[in-house]
Amino acid sequence: MPALPATRLHVHEVAPRDGLQMESVFVPTEAKVAWIDQLSALGYAKIEVTSFVSPAAIPALRDAEAVMRLITRAPGVVYTALVPNVRGGERAIDGRVDEFNLVMSASATHNLANLRMTQAQSFRTLAETTRLAQQAGVAVNVSLSCAFGCPMEGAVPAATVADWVARFADLGVQGVTLCDTTGMADPGQVLALCSATAQAHPTLALTAHFHDTRGLGGANVFAALQAGITRFDASLGGIGGCPYAPGASGNVATEDLVHLLQCLGLDCGMDAEALAPAAQTLGELLGHGLPSAVGRAGPRWRRHPLPADFEQTRERALARELAM
Amino acid sequence: MPALPATRLHVHEVAPRDGLQMESVFVPTEAKVAWIDQLSALGYAKIEVTSFVSPAAIPALRDAEAVMRLITRAPGVVYTALVPNVRGGERAIDGRVDEFNLVMSASATHNLANLRMTQAQSFRTLAETTRLAQQAGVAVNVSLSCAFGCPMEGAVPAATVADWVARFADLGVQGVTLCDTTGMADPGQVLALCSATAQAHPTLALTAHFHDTRGLGGANVFAALQAGITRFDASLGGIGGCPYAPGASGNVATEDLVHLLQCLGLDCGMDAEALAPAAQTLGELLGHGLPSAVGRAGPRWRRHPLPADFEQTRERALARELAM
Repeated sequence: MPALPATRLHVHEVAPRDGLQMESVFVPTEAKVAWIDQLSALGYAKIEVTSFVSPAAIPALRDAEAVMRLITRAPGVVYTALVPNVRGGERAIDGRVDEFNLVMSASATHNLANLRMTQAQSFRTLAETTRLAQQAGVAVNVSLSCAFGCPMEGAVPAATVADWVARFADLGVQGVTLCDTTGMADPGQVLALCSATAQAHPTLALTAHFHDTRGLGGANVFAALQAGITRFDASLGGIGGCPYAPGASGNVATEDLVHLLQCLGLDCGMDAEALAPAAQTLGELLGHGLPSAVGRAGPRWRRHPLPADFEQTRERALARELAM
Repeated sequence: MPALPATRLHVHEVAPRDGLQMESVFVPTEAKVAWIDQLSALGYAKIEVTSFVSPAAIPALRDAEAVMRLITRAPGVVYTALVPNVRGGERAIDGRVDEFNLVMSASATHNLANLRMTQAQSFRTLAETTRLAQQAGVAVNVSLSCAFGCPMEGAVPAATVADWVARFADLGVQGVTLCDTTGMADPGQVLALCSATAQAHPTLALTAHFHDTRGLGGANVFAALQAGITRFDASLGGIGGCPYAPGASGNVATEDLVHLLQCLGLDCGMDAEALAPAAQTLGELLGHGLPSAVGRAGPRWRRHPLPADFEQTRERALARELAM
């Protein structure tokens, strides 16, 4: 039986960026900031605060500068933001982000559809943006989309993923996130790909990012733990998704991830039940329910009351017992 | 990394009994029989057809005799039914079931609340009913509820589960199902409990029965596979649940289970997509949607179309490439 990690685990909240960008409402800046401040108290290792893409491209995140300026930063939390290019990187540096989160896709088709660039163009942009971060002394993480499959192309070979990760490592980035963008990963594949990546790059901070599209979010987290992964993206309430995979549900819910880690006796410095008020805030801001399973059912340690007729039932059963 | 089972896996459909008993509608006998006949063609190892409890107790299954008489039995499929006591066993023998599925709970509280008997009374009944089956040459499986925890009592010690399984084995039953009745299991616990049970009883046919209450159905199946379990209960569409755990979602959906096994390259003789027509029938009979994730999102090998503007996007990107 593979040992699970004995070290502290790192939970990364992606709802403010990866989640909100899929929502049709604009959450007002003040409310967004208050909600992120609420998140900052919950024990996250990292919070993806916003995105420095063009405000026209993602109106939901058009207040990136204001949000970065107005949040109260908790000690020990890494405040990261999505950075699409050098122009975005300059804005992110002005916003004093702790980390650039750069993105490209392991699938050529998805890269074109999502980023409107060829993979060669994306990599060039990513390398330039990494140099800017390095000059400014800011850390860089690269999120590799479709690392476990592309909804349009199908399977993405493990060798393709290995090539891209090696190219990112050669740029000197601190971390890489393997993203199962549309929920195509299975736990066998996760064990194999995460183990191979960790072995090839022992000094890279590897993060796993799963979606619960086909009921395998928890299984993939468990497999990644078995592969030694200690950093996980998750989205409060399970919001998020991908525009190229209709019917796909969102990211693994943070409540569900933290609950699983707690059930396994692993330490991530967080408590699934303590997330409920922030999830309630989020649901009110969005005006709809959230898909998190633990949000609905409660953690497994919550006791349910006895049925109203329980004492009568017991007395009757014991009376039959004596009559025998 | 633990090896997954190399042998054929057995999928047991429990929706006709465990699923329908939670539904408020009565599915007319003819429609129920036609639907079960549809299931019989899909590759299941076992189908739990009905329950020989008192018709007053579970009106949804009041047509047990008629259903057993009218279904067309596919060769190789085991047709089992829930049998609560000797009286039910006599009816089940008349109905020519292949197997009695007997139930009791590893939790004293849940046993009283659900079966209205003490565990001692339940075990006595179970032993008498097993003798009846043995006299009639009918196989016996015991489904042990709350083997991974009780929603009212909390944790159920592994030693308690081991004791009950040993007592069932001593009666000479063929199989035992470890049931996570309200979705409290985690994959670490599943690995430990399933491995220990399989090692203690190498000749017993062990089945795992999970609920997806807290997003861990798939994770628990994966862990059970790592423990060498080759038999799984599942419910088409993910229907079912437990009256003592409000908010709990249903059984692991058969579509989700089969999809996971297919993704892992394991052979269960079934295809997740081939379940769709039977799931559609079920949704129409019940008049509501079904919670299966794969039912909603489709299997991971389903390709999504390219965005409408994909060719334009590509041409523009390539033109920029040439201009550089």
